[in-house]
Amino acid sequence: MSERTLVDPEILEKCSLYPDYVEAKLGFRNHWYPSLFSHELEEGEFKAHEILGDRLLLTRVDGKVYAVRDRCPHRGVPFSRRPECFKKGTLTCWYHAFTFKLSTGMLCDIITNPKSNLIGKVQIPTYKVEEAKGIIFIFMGDIDPPDLADDVPPGFLDENMVIRGVRQEVGSNWRIGCENGFDSTHVFIHKDSILVEGNDITLPLGFVPTSRDTFKVVDGPTGPKGVYDLLAEHCIPIFEGKIEGETVLQGHMGSNRVAYDISIWLPGVLRVDPWPDPSLTQFEWYVPIDESRHFYIQTLGRSINVPEDEAIFDEEFENKWKDLALAGFNDDDIWAREAQQEFYKHDEAWYKEQLFEPDRNISKWRQLASRHHRGIQRYENLF
Amino acid sequence: MSERTLVDPEILEKCSLYPDYVEAKLGFRNHWYPSLFSHELEEGEFKAHEILGDRLLLTRVDGKVYAVRDRCPHRGVPFSRRPECFKKGTLTCWYHAFTFKLSTGMLCDIITNPKSNLIGKVQIPTYKVEEAKGIIFIFMGDIDPPDLADDVPPGFLDENMVIRGVRQEVGSNWRIGCENGFDSTHVFIHKDSILVEGNDITLPLGFVPTSRDTFKVVDGPTGPKGVYDLLAEHCIPIFEGKIEGETVLQGHMGSNRVAYDISIWLPGVLRVDPWPDPSLTQFEWYVPIDESRHFYIQTLGRSINVPEDEAIFDEEFENKWKDLALAGFNDDDIWAREAQQEFYKHDEAWYKEQLFEPDRNISKWRQLASRHHRGIQRYENLF
Amino acid sequence: MSERTLVDPEILEKCSLYPDYVEAKLGFRNHWYPSLFSHELEEGEFKAHEILGDRLLLTRVDGKVYAVRDRCPHRGVPFSRRPECFKKGTLTCWYHAFTFKLSTGMLCDIITNPKSNLIGKVQIPTYKVEEAKGIIFIFMGDIDPPDLADDVPPGFLDENMVIRGVRQEVGSNWRIGCENGFDSTHVFIHKDSILVEGNDITLPLGFVPTSRDTFKVVDGPTGPKGVYDLLAEHCIPIFEGKIEGETVLQGHMGSNRVAYDISIWLPGVLRVDPWPDPSLTQFEWYVPIDESRHFYIQTLGRSINVPEDEAIFDEEFENKWKDLALAGFNDDDIWAREAQQEFYKHDEAWYKEQLFEPDRNISKWRQLASRHHRGIQRYENLF
Repeated sequence: MSERTLVDPEILEKCSLYPDYVEAKLGFRNHWYPSLFSHELEEGEFKAHEILGDRLLLTRVDGKVYAVRDRCPHRGVPFSRRPECFKKGTLTCWYHAFTFKLSTGMLCDIITNPKSNLIGKVQIPTYKVEEAKGIIFIFMGDIDPPDLADDVPPGFLDENMVIRGVRQEVGSNWRIGCENGFDSTHVFIHKDSILVEGNDITLPLGFVPTSRDTFKVVDGPTGPKGVYDLLAEHCIPIFEGKIEGETVLQGHMGSNRVAYDISIWLPGVLRVDPWPDPSLTQFEWYVPIDESRHFYIQTLGRSINVPEDEAIFDEEFENKWKDLALAGFNDDDIWAREAQQEFYKHDEAWYKEQLFEPDRNISKWRQLASRHHRGIQRYENLF
Repeated sequence: MSERTLVDPEILEKCSLYPDYVEAKLGFRNHWYPSLFSHELEEGEFKAHEILGDRLLLTRVDGKVYAVRDRCPHRGVPFSRRPECFKKGTLTCWYHAFTFKLSTGMLCDIITNPKSNLIGKVQIPTYKVEEAKGIIFIFMGDIDPPDLADDVPPGFLDENMVIRGVRQEVGSNWRIGCENGFDSTHVFIHKDSILVEGNDITLPLGFVPTSRDTFKVVDGPTGPKGVYDLLAEHCIPIFEGKIEGETVLQGHMGSNRVAYDISIWLPGVLRVDPWPDPSLTQFEWYVPIDESRHFYIQTLGRSINVPEDEAIFDEEFENKWKDLALAGFNDDDIWAREAQQEFYKHDEAWYKEQLFEPDRNISKWRQLASRHHRGIQRYENLF
Repeated sequence: MSERTLVDPEILEKCSLYPDYVEAKLGFRNHWYPSLFSHELEEGEFKAHEILGDRLLLTRVDGKVYAVRDRCPHRGVPFSRRPECFKKGTLTCWYHAFTFKLSTGMLCDIITNPKSNLIGKVQIPTYKVEEAKGIIFIFMGDIDPPDLADDVPPGFLDENMVIRGVRQEVGSNWRIGCENGFDSTHVFIHKDSILVEGNDITLPLGFVPTSRDTFKVVDGPTGPKGVYDLLAEHCIPIFEGKIEGETVLQGHMGSNRVAYDISIWLPGVLRVDPWPDPSLTQFEWYVPIDESRHFYIQTLGRSINVPEDEAIFDEEFENKWKDLALAGFNDDDIWAREAQQEFYKHDEAWYKEQLFEPDRNISKWRQLASRHHRGIQRYENLF
C-alpha cells in the first residue's frame, strides 16, 4: 500500500523488551480511537478520514455516526470523491451506482443493474462508532469491541467531566507523540513559555530520579492499561542548570504546582492532571494517520457541579486556554516531535538511541504497550 | 528506470485470462500510437515527447516528421535540452557535438573530433512515423511495422473522413482510460451533464444484460483487432433508478439516440459511433506516457462529401464540440480515471476488484489485448 | 538512510578499471573538503551543513571553527533545529539539555539530570577543521588527517596566492561535476559565451588527439594526486566545424590564449591555469552533498607581490569576474551537469556510456581516483 521498510529481525531482537511496539508503525489494531469532534460532522454530511493507514468515510444519519471504508469494492474508487446518498441510510458509489447499507456495509442495490448477482453478497468494511464527551470514537478493528472505558484514561468518562478540545495534524509517527508527551524531561523545551511565566507555574529544568521506582504500571484484568509517572515523588527537581560546575540557567519557581500526576494509556493517550490550571485535566491523543503523521487531539476536561458551569468553561476554553495552553504551549511539542521523525523513521533508531535515566518510564510504556495491545495494524489489513 | 512493483506471480495466475494485459503497465510494444497533432510540429521545430516510458525527440524536415530517442549515447544527455541542427537532416548534441542523421540515427560526424573512430558505428534508435488525418503516428517498436490501418479503428482512415481533436495529459494508467471509455455503465457519471440535456440525448442510468452475448470480437488474420459492445441490443436500459424498491433517480429520455455502436481496438483506442451527434464519430486514444499517466487524445470525425464541408466542420468543432463535448462532457471521465489510479497502481487490484455483469465486455477486451498485442513494453527497452 | 540503488556486481566488473569511483556516489572518505567560506560563519554563529551525505553543525568559538555531527545521540534530533550554547565551547541540545564539548564531542553535562551515568561516556562525532585562503576545510573521515596540502591542487596554498570565490548548489552527482570540468571537449557548450567574445579568448570547437599521451598522472608517494590534461600539446584544435564535409560552424580565434594547463585532483577539485585571464588561476571544487547534489565552489586565485594588490583584486573580483566568469560562463556548465543526472543516477550508465577519444583523460582521472582515494563514503558511515 505504500513504500515502507520492514522491521529488520536483528533490530527486533535488540528491542526484545518491546518488539510489538517497534513494529506498530501504523498503531495498534482493535482499539478505540478518537476521530472527529462531534461538531465537525453534521447530519447528512460526509467526511473522509484517514486513520491507522486506513481510509474511512464518516457520515451522520438521524444523529448516529457511521464509518465505512472509503473504497468501492467494484473498481476501487473512493466514495468520498463525490459522495452520493439517494436514500437515507445508504451510500451510492458515484461511478457505477453500487449502493451499500451504512449499517452493515452490505451491497443492497446496484442502481445501474438491479438484477446483478453481486447484490447481497459483497460488503464493505464497517467500523463501530461511539460518541462520548463530544468526540466521535471509532473502533479500528474487527473483534467484538470492548467498552470504550477500557481505552480511555481514568476520569475521562466521569459523568461530571466536561471536555473541550482541538485537533491538528503533526508530521511525525504517533509513537514519537506519545513519548514526547510522557517524557518528564521534555519540560526543558518549555522553559521560555509564556504560559509558565503568565500562569506562575513551577517548572524545573529537569528531574534527577532518586530511585528506580519512578513509575506505576496499571494492567489489571479489566479497565484501561497505562503507566503513571511517579518522578514527582521520586526525584530531585533541577532548578539550577549547570555546565562544568557553573550555573548557566534557572528553572521557574512559581506558586502554581501543576502536572504532578502524569500517565499514558493504551492505545496512545496522555493524561496530565491538573493542567494547565489546578481546575483542569488535559487528555491528549496521538492517533496514527500513517507511518509519518498523526492527529494530535488535545482536550481539556473540567469536573463541573452545576450545568451553568459548562458555559463558563466554554467561554474560558475559547478565550483563554485554546490559545495560551493548547496552541501557544504545545507548538513547541509539535516541532520537537517533527524533529525526531527523520531519525525514528529508520528502524535502527530504536536501538541506536541512547536513553538516559528518566527515560526508564518511556521503556515501561513501550513494554506495557507491547504486552497489552490487541493487535498490530499491518498493511495487509488495508488492502 | 523508475520505482515500480513487479507483478507478483500469484497475481498473474489469478489473472490468467489476461496475463499480458496486467503486465503491460507501459503499454504494448510494436504498435502505432498517435503523438502530436500535425499542427503542433512546424518545419524545423523540435519537440520532446514521452510515450510508453520512452523519451523521444520529434522534428520536421521538408515536411517529413522524424522521431529519435532523446538521449545522446555519449554521456546520456537529452538532445532536447538545447536541440541543435547545423545541417538539414541532422541533429547535433549540444554537449560534444555528436551529430546524427535523422533518417538512420547513425553518428555521421563529431564536429569537435572529426576523425573519431565512433563515427559510422554508433546509432540512436529511430522510430517510424506516419502522418494521417492531421495526426503524427509513431511506431513504438523495432519490428517491421504493419500498416497503420491495422492499429486504428475501422472508418478512421476512410477517404472522406475529416478528423479534428485535442490532446491532454491524464493522471492514470492508460488501461484505466481504455476501460472507463469502453465501460457502458459509466454513463452513470454523466447523468447530470449539460450535453445530455442540451443536446436532448437519450441516456439511461445503466444497462441490464439480457444474455451473455454482449460483445463481438474482431480478430481476423488481418486488420485491426477489437471488441464491439453489443449491450444496446442485448440489454434492458435502466431509466428508473431504485434503492430497496423505491425509485430514487431517473435516466434521461431524449429524442437523439447516439452511441449505439461502441468498440475498442488495439493498442488502446475507442470508437463511439455516432457521438456526440448523429453526424459524428468519436475516436479517442489512451496513450501511455508512463505507468501513472496517459495522453488522452480525443478526436471527432465527420464523413464529408464536398470539400467545403470541411470548413463548416472546422467552425462547428472549434465553436461547439470542443467545449461542449470534449471538455465539458469528458472532464468527468478524467477525474473518474484519476480516482482509480490509487487502487490500480497495486498489482493486487487486478484480482481484488469485484467485476459485475456488464464488465464482461471489459474482460473480453483484456483477453483480446493479451492475445493479440505485438509485445509488452518493458523497462529493459528503455535504457 | 535514503533510497538508493546498490551497485550491481556485473556493472562493477565492467567498470573494473575504476570500480571504487563507480561506488563512490557519496564521495571519498578521509579527505579534506571545503565547506563554507570563512566570512559565512561569524563568531558564535551556528550553521548546519550537509556534505558527503552527512549532516554537520559548524560553529566558531574564539575564532576557531568546530564541526560536529548535527544529531543528538539521545533521541536523534538535529541540534541545528534550535542551537543552544550556554557556555562557551559547549553545545546544548534544545530537547533534553545534553551538553557536549565542541573540542572533543564528549557529553560533559546533562543540565536536566546532572548525575546521569551517560556523562563522560557518550560522544558525538567531531571533524577536524582548517581554515586556509578564506575557506573552511573539513576533514571528512576518522583517520589521522594528512596535510591539507595533500588534498588541494599545487599552487593553491602558495604564500602569495590570494583566493576569492562563490559557492552554489548544483543538482547532479559530484562526479559529473568533476568530469564536466576536466572534459576538454565541453568547450563546445561555451562557443557562444560573452566571455569568449568580450575577453577575446581563443576557443576552438574541440580537439583531435594526435597521440595517446594526452595526460600526465601525478601520484607520487606524497603530495596531491591528480591528472594533467596535455591535449593542448598533443592535439589539433578544431576551428572549422564540419558536417558531411561542409563547414557549418567556426571556433573563436582570439588574442588571449588561456586555459592551457588544466588538471584535476583528489578529492574532486579542478585547476585551470590561467583562467579566465592570464593573471588568474581558477580552482573549483565539486563537493558531494548527497547522491544527486553537489556544492560547486568556484574560486579564482591571483599571486600578488605587494599587499595593496589584494584590494585591487577584490574590486576586480566583485565587479568583473564574479558576474562575467563565474556566473555568466559557468551557468552553462551547471545545466550541462544537471542534464546528465537522469542518466548517471543509474549504475548501468557507467558502462552504457559511449566514450570517445578525448575522454581518455576522464578515464585516467577515474582510475587515479579509484587507486588513490582514502576510503569510500557509505551509508553505514552516517547512521
